[in-house]
Amino acid sequence: MAENFSFKLLATDGNARRGLVSMPRGEIRTPAFMPVGTGGTVKAMYMDQVRGVGADIILGNTYHLMLRPGAERVARLGGLHEFARWPYPILTDSGGFQVMSLSKLRKLTEQGVTFRSHIDGAPYEMSPERSIEIQGLLDSDIQMQLDECIELPAERREAERAMELSLRWAERAQRRFAEQAAPGQALFGIVQGGVDPELRRRSADALVGMDLPGYAVGGLAVGEGQEMMLRTLEGVLPHLPSHKPRYLMGVGTPSDLIKSVQRGVDMFDCVMPTRNGRHGLVFTWNGKVNLRNAMHAEDASPLDPESSCPAARDYSRAYLHHLVRSGEYLGAMLLSWVNTAFYQELMAAMRLAIAEGRFSTWAEETLSRIER
Amino acid sequence: MAENFSFKLLATDGNARRGLVSMPRGEIRTPAFMPVGTGGTVKAMYMDQVRGVGADIILGNTYHLMLRPGAERVARLGGLHEFARWPYPILTDSGGFQVMSLSKLRKLTEQGVTFRSHIDGAPYEMSPERSIEIQGLLDSDIQMQLDECIELPAERREAERAMELSLRWAERAQRRFAEQAAPGQALFGIVQGGVDPELRRRSADALVGMDLPGYAVGGLAVGEGQEMMLRTLEGVLPHLPSHKPRYLMGVGTPSDLIKSVQRGVDMFDCVMPTRNGRHGLVFTWNGKVNLRNAMHAEDASPLDPESSCPAARDYSRAYLHHLVRSGEYLGAMLLSWVNTAFYQELMAAMRLAIAEGRFSTWAEETLSRIER
Repeated sequence: MAENFSFKLLATDGNARRGLVSMPRGEIRTPAFMPVGTGGTVKAMYMDQVRGVGADIILGNTYHLMLRPGAERVARLGGLHEFARWPYPILTDSGGFQVMSLSKLRKLTEQGVTFRSHIDGAPYEMSPERSIEIQGLLDSDIQMQLDECIELPAERREAERAMELSLRWAERAQRRFAEQAAPGQALFGIVQGGVDPELRRRSADALVGMDLPGYAVGGLAVGEGQEMMLRTLEGVLPHLPSHKPRYLMGVGTPSDLIKSVQRGVDMFDCVMPTRNGRHGLVFTWNGKVNLRNAMHAEDASPLDPESSCPAARDYSRAYLHHLVRSGEYLGAMLLSWVNTAFYQELMAAMRLAIAEGRFSTWAEETLSRIER
Repeated sequence: MAENFSFKLLATDGNARRGLVSMPRGEIRTPAFMPVGTGGTVKAMYMDQVRGVGADIILGNTYHLMLRPGAERVARLGGLHEFARWPYPILTDSGGFQVMSLSKLRKLTEQGVTFRSHIDGAPYEMSPERSIEIQGLLDSDIQMQLDECIELPAERREAERAMELSLRWAERAQRRFAEQAAPGQALFGIVQGGVDPELRRRSADALVGMDLPGYAVGGLAVGEGQEMMLRTLEGVLPHLPSHKPRYLMGVGTPSDLIKSVQRGVDMFDCVMPTRNGRHGLVFTWNGKVNLRNAMHAEDASPLDPESSCPAARDYSRAYLHHLVRSGEYLGAMLLSWVNTAFYQELMAAMRLAIAEGRFSTWAEETLSRIER
């Protein structure tokens, strides 16, 4: 195992990149999709299944974990890897995004955010330093700076204010991280700036000047539409160093992933595979399937006889339809597994296409197949 | 595989019995506990796990399956074994108990019951013949006669009326079964009669006169208390033939199982292991554990390091507590697995104790351990 965090660019194909992150707890083959393990569990899945479908890294939500079971408690129990039985790399977000979307009575100042828990109303304080402290208590391998993610559309002035605040918070996070980080842990900065190219460029340049081990693009996929998201990415990515990983936060659909990889993104996370699975929606190589639909009620065929995931290969659509309609746990279990497997298959296919220098052909064919 | 249904008594120890049911789809080691797979799924478990913890047979609920996905649909999809991916024996109840407890606007006559679905209000008719027809469509291995299960306490006259109706329905079920049954399938009769020894004896004698392959004791564990249940069993079991299996329906707690085996029962089913698991309550060799309890919040020890079930052996109580408190799917998944495994371990321990002629010592020690 690597002693330090490193990123090796293995191949490029147009702007698409294939790489390898090495860390003490394992390697991450990029482009990588990180299943979201919100509160120490990838919903409705066993960790063995998450690993088994090919995930190298999962994401944990700092906001959820700080509220329940609490960061100090997780630390006393040996850290998040031990607690949740996932010994491989974990990336944690800063908590900021969910403080903004879930908590109550929040108040943002230069210092940080105060808010009340959406679970029991208990008061909390979150600052750039406290976010890093929590992520350290969780023993997270890749930690994210606290940032301010604004809603889109937004006034330029508002986007600029939040971007500049996020930069100041990045510096505070970096100082705190330097004091406490374990060997091989990495802190990523987050590019903000709404959909304004000049703000995004300023944010990227300033973060690159801090020489962080990786960079995320935040504040996208929040309602601006795929086209605007991709245009923003196209403006930002050339300003990020090619020898460091680039992480597009909270994205997205299979189409989003393909088109973002095509523009040079290396890492992704999204609740979509598990959340959609819980609602009976699955992704396949032939497009989306809504298993609630009556057309599946007597269909004895599996979702995908070619899949290596037992849930896609061995269960009839009729049975899955029945489970979804009946609200059975097993429906959520099987379909979360199907989607998590599909997302990993998709990333594996992209890595292979890049390695073989045929990414754009592959992308075109795949997009027409999954979007039909 | 056996071509016909047979029961072999392998050992007795006091009134406790160890036996083997052989059927075309497999063997059932008795005393046996049947996990309940209500609507074609043992809730929150994979069938591989149900098999893996040692279950030889599961139970399907005719009422739930006839409403959704529908018996004819299951038949078109190849039967319940194929549909739910459980190729081993399945016992189905008659549907009567749940018609009485769940459905709406039910009306009982000599002919049968009419009722409306609790799901969508659709009207249905259930008769002794239709119940067997449905169980045949499901391709159930052990089918149960339709009976009338009354609430306790009840007037003797009411218990007698229901018992006699159940006997007439048993005869109608037997005729219908003879017309349609596949080789190796078995029909069990159900002894009724409330808690009245004379009614129970009359019911048992009449059913034994029909020479059915197995006999159930129904209408117990419906509020009469363990002592009354055991006393009723003691009155009934001597009237059932020793060379046929005896099934106590809908029972029960570990203590119920031990004390009923001690009196000569061979088969059980109950939702308790999975339902309790979903609510954070688990059974262990050292008694019940409520994982919601704050005392587990920082307990890094597993539920049972000696268990062969990974859910009991490999996960900390602290993590399970967190999952239960957070309402996570994985909590229900792991704890249903723990309980289903425990029930199978309990049955295996009873079979061994009977084989070795030390059942009563074992029972005494185990009861004091699990009830402390």
